[in-house]
Amino acid sequence: MSEERGMAVVGAGLVGSLMALLLANRGHKVDVYERRSDPRKVGDAAGRSINLALSERGWRALEVAGAVDAVRSIAMPVKARCMHALDGKLTYQPYGLAGKGRFGHDQSIYSVARGPLNRILMEAAEATGRVNVHFEHPLSDFRSHPEGLDLSFATGHTVRHQRLFGTDGAFSAVRQRMMKKDRFDFSQSYLDHGYKEVAMPPTASGDFAIDPEALHIWPRGHFMLMALPNPDKTFTCTLFAPYEGAQGFSEIPDAAAARSYFEMHFPDVLDLVPDFDRDWTENPTSSLVMTRCAPWHQGDRVVLMGDAAHAIVPFYGQGMNSGFEDARVMADLLDAHNGSPQKESWPALLSDFTRLRKENGDAIGDLALRNFVEMRDRTGDPRFLLQKRIERRLTDRHPSIWKPLYSMVTFSHLPYSDALAFGRIQDGIMSEVMDRDDIAEAWDSEAVEHHALQLAAERLPTYAQPS
Amino acid sequence: MSEERGMAVVGAGLVGSLMALLLANRGHKVDVYERRSDPRKVGDAAGRSINLALSERGWRALEVAGAVDAVRSIAMPVKARCMHALDGKLTYQPYGLAGKGRFGHDQSIYSVARGPLNRILMEAAEATGRVNVHFEHPLSDFRSHPEGLDLSFATGHTVRHQRLFGTDGAFSAVRQRMMKKDRFDFSQSYLDHGYKEVAMPPTASGDFAIDPEALHIWPRGHFMLMALPNPDKTFTCTLFAPYEGAQGFSEIPDAAAARSYFEMHFPDVLDLVPDFDRDWTENPTSSLVMTRCAPWHQGDRVVLMGDAAHAIVPFYGQGMNSGFEDARVMADLLDAHNGSPQKESWPALLSDFTRLRKENGDAIGDLALRNFVEMRDRTGDPRFLLQKRIERRLTDRHPSIWKPLYSMVTFSHLPYSDALAFGRIQDGIMSEVMDRDDIAEAWDSEAVEHHALQLAAERLPTYAQPS
Repeated sequence: MSEERGMAVVGAGLVGSLMALLLANRGHKVDVYERRSDPRKVGDAAGRSINLALSERGWRALEVAGAVDAVRSIAMPVKARCMHALDGKLTYQPYGLAGKGRFGHDQSIYSVARGPLNRILMEAAEATGRVNVHFEHPLSDFRSHPEGLDLSFATGHTVRHQRLFGTDGAFSAVRQRMMKKDRFDFSQSYLDHGYKEVAMPPTASGDFAIDPEALHIWPRGHFMLMALPNPDKTFTCTLFAPYEGAQGFSEIPDAAAARSYFEMHFPDVLDLVPDFDRDWTENPTSSLVMTRCAPWHQGDRVVLMGDAAHAIVPFYGQGMNSGFEDARVMADLLDAHNGSPQKESWPALLSDFTRLRKENGDAIGDLALRNFVEMRDRTGDPRFLLQKRIERRLTDRHPSIWKPLYSMVTFSHLPYSDALAFGRIQDGIMSEVMDRDDIAEAWDSEAVEHHALQLAAERLPTYAQPS
Repeated sequence: MSEERGMAVVGAGLVGSLMALLLANRGHKVDVYERRSDPRKVGDAAGRSINLALSERGWRALEVAGAVDAVRSIAMPVKARCMHALDGKLTYQPYGLAGKGRFGHDQSIYSVARGPLNRILMEAAEATGRVNVHFEHPLSDFRSHPEGLDLSFATGHTVRHQRLFGTDGAFSAVRQRMMKKDRFDFSQSYLDHGYKEVAMPPTASGDFAIDPEALHIWPRGHFMLMALPNPDKTFTCTLFAPYEGAQGFSEIPDAAAARSYFEMHFPDVLDLVPDFDRDWTENPTSSLVMTRCAPWHQGDRVVLMGDAAHAIVPFYGQGMNSGFEDARVMADLLDAHNGSPQKESWPALLSDFTRLRKENGDAIGDLALRNFVEMRDRTGDPRFLLQKRIERRLTDRHPSIWKPLYSMVTFSHLPYSDALAFGRIQDGIMSEVMDRDDIAEAWDSEAVEHHALQLAAERLPTYAQPS
């Protein structure tokens, strides 16, 4: 009863579409199975997207796939964080170095909307003539045989494939099947915080309501508001707050309460969100989950990537980028076998993938969680802003010695696990430097600089050049 | 289509049968649903039991349920650890204090076989006339409505209940359904070690082949053999070894290799296991999993207990005891409402249960893992044995100040989380005491004793009396 096919990709989201394209570029016939309907027919789901921030790791993967030009047309450069204090004062922190970014620009991250990006990747995959996307095909199970892997679907179909790439997101059905096998480690943990989105439309004159080249943050300690620009000149504003307790969602029962909440904590926002009451009422309060698992592969046939392998919180803007990097590394492993590994090469290839990627998935998960604390809490702290200024000066004057953690993560291809390890060493150094008695007055002195460089020389001996 | 009933227990294992009995004793009608067949008709599964060690927490729960006498008839006291060195030398460590145990005996743990114990509890529950056990009823789903909870089964039945006690073990179907809901934390992690059992029959004269009042350990660093007595005068011998690497199962491909392995590492055992080759070949190599989750309840209708809430590794002999303690604490919470809480009391009761038990489930999980390292590795270490002698002397002379961690866990009702915290403080104290220059010669001196007591007075100020 079963047909036989080569490569299966389960999940036609961003990482699945990119992986299908990368496989097709290497000559493979690919079937992509997606449980949802074709978004080109039914439209995108709204109200729980969190805009996506595309950065260097993502661009490189798109480059390998030949999709940079198409994506560039929908990507908006975001050059700085803009912090909004309670009194309305704005503080800017550029993300990267002037003139060192892609396309001859400054180092920036790029705001992209999920729907259009997904469509570009899916259509690029289909345009190869080797990729078939099967919508409304929820995976119900798979079974491995010596001759192949039988995928069965809620539709009643069973199809035999040789390999399965599981790219079906944080609640992956592929991973759920792997969990039933012996000796598969898994964890899911939810943040005490949830989020809700409201939309900030363009002004009456058709312009962005606030600076479109910045990611806006209203840091308020244990909660915060964020806003990211969209190409249609709207901003998506996202409130991150605890479910329970002070300033939590449980204390905001309705739109009227939300309005007072915003008046108290984000007074410069409310006037810019005319449909506040409707958005607040209609948009869901969504949870934030982190998942980990090991191994990422099963035998020589099944492998997880992207959110299916490592769902992370969105606070480093690396969810998509780390998933794209997974796909790029997989493409590199395939290329080591001229794109088409022999049957006997697959066990080693897949276990190499787990070995290369698992610790990096864990590291970006840790980094994203720690960036949440930094964004909501520390970006409003004068001492933290002073520390950032010192680090920035070190970077400007000694770029080969002092790379900001944010740059290692966002503008380099250094493994995330190395970035995390170096970041921890830098934290230790900066905490000693910030303890100097003269730090408030002499933050830009030679003495402070010398102190930091000396500690860096001692403790960062194997400091890798991000390539 | 659905009938309506009160209490549902899913899983007719040890904790489920005990919980059903405790509910029935409080006047409730209980339906127990079990996916397996009636063990009284089909016999018990063999080859992957690990004998059970019943200790104080378990006895107290049985006492509350009125089942002590029945269980006592199948329980064998085990008074000491007996360590087997490679040269055949035996070292004994008593588990507890002389004359301070149950039934007028010394403090002991009790070896019981799972099958008979399960039968005793199930039949005691049925004998109340209020408990119906439905075998071959695998739970497929449950749904909460304002009026009740609809349980559906693979048999096609749907039954409405008011409460559901999920006692269906480490791979709990109840928990799997809870995982699909928002904001339920879960982790499963496997040890790198697995285990395999072989049986040591009675001698030709019908006697136990080795000392039946001891738990036998052959500690060999990163692997070990254990043996626990059974009432039929056999011993169940269990090899715990890593799956991969040196001395791992992957290096023991067949019975002949296993025979050389035992000859090299456990030379005093092989002659006592006549059916070694058959047992080795037929018994599976089983994995060891730990699970955690939070919360243990859902709304006011569903609650997890035992392995379903906190599967742990077997190295503290507390898997069953902690599950029984869950059931006893639940009975206490019910008794606070005269056994039958009003509808409106259930939300608080179930969240109290999570609050009271979750941290203790985590703590016994940590304790069990750490005891694995101690049993396989440190019980062969002369320095560790010296430390244990010093601690024992402290306990003998100052029983209200120095309680061995093992006693707090095994012979008291102190919350596991307190036992773990006190144990860590004691570790710190003993590591300082063991660093004394005079420790090897003067371990039983007043000076050493005074040093330890002084540190204990400083650091254990809130040392609770285990009750």
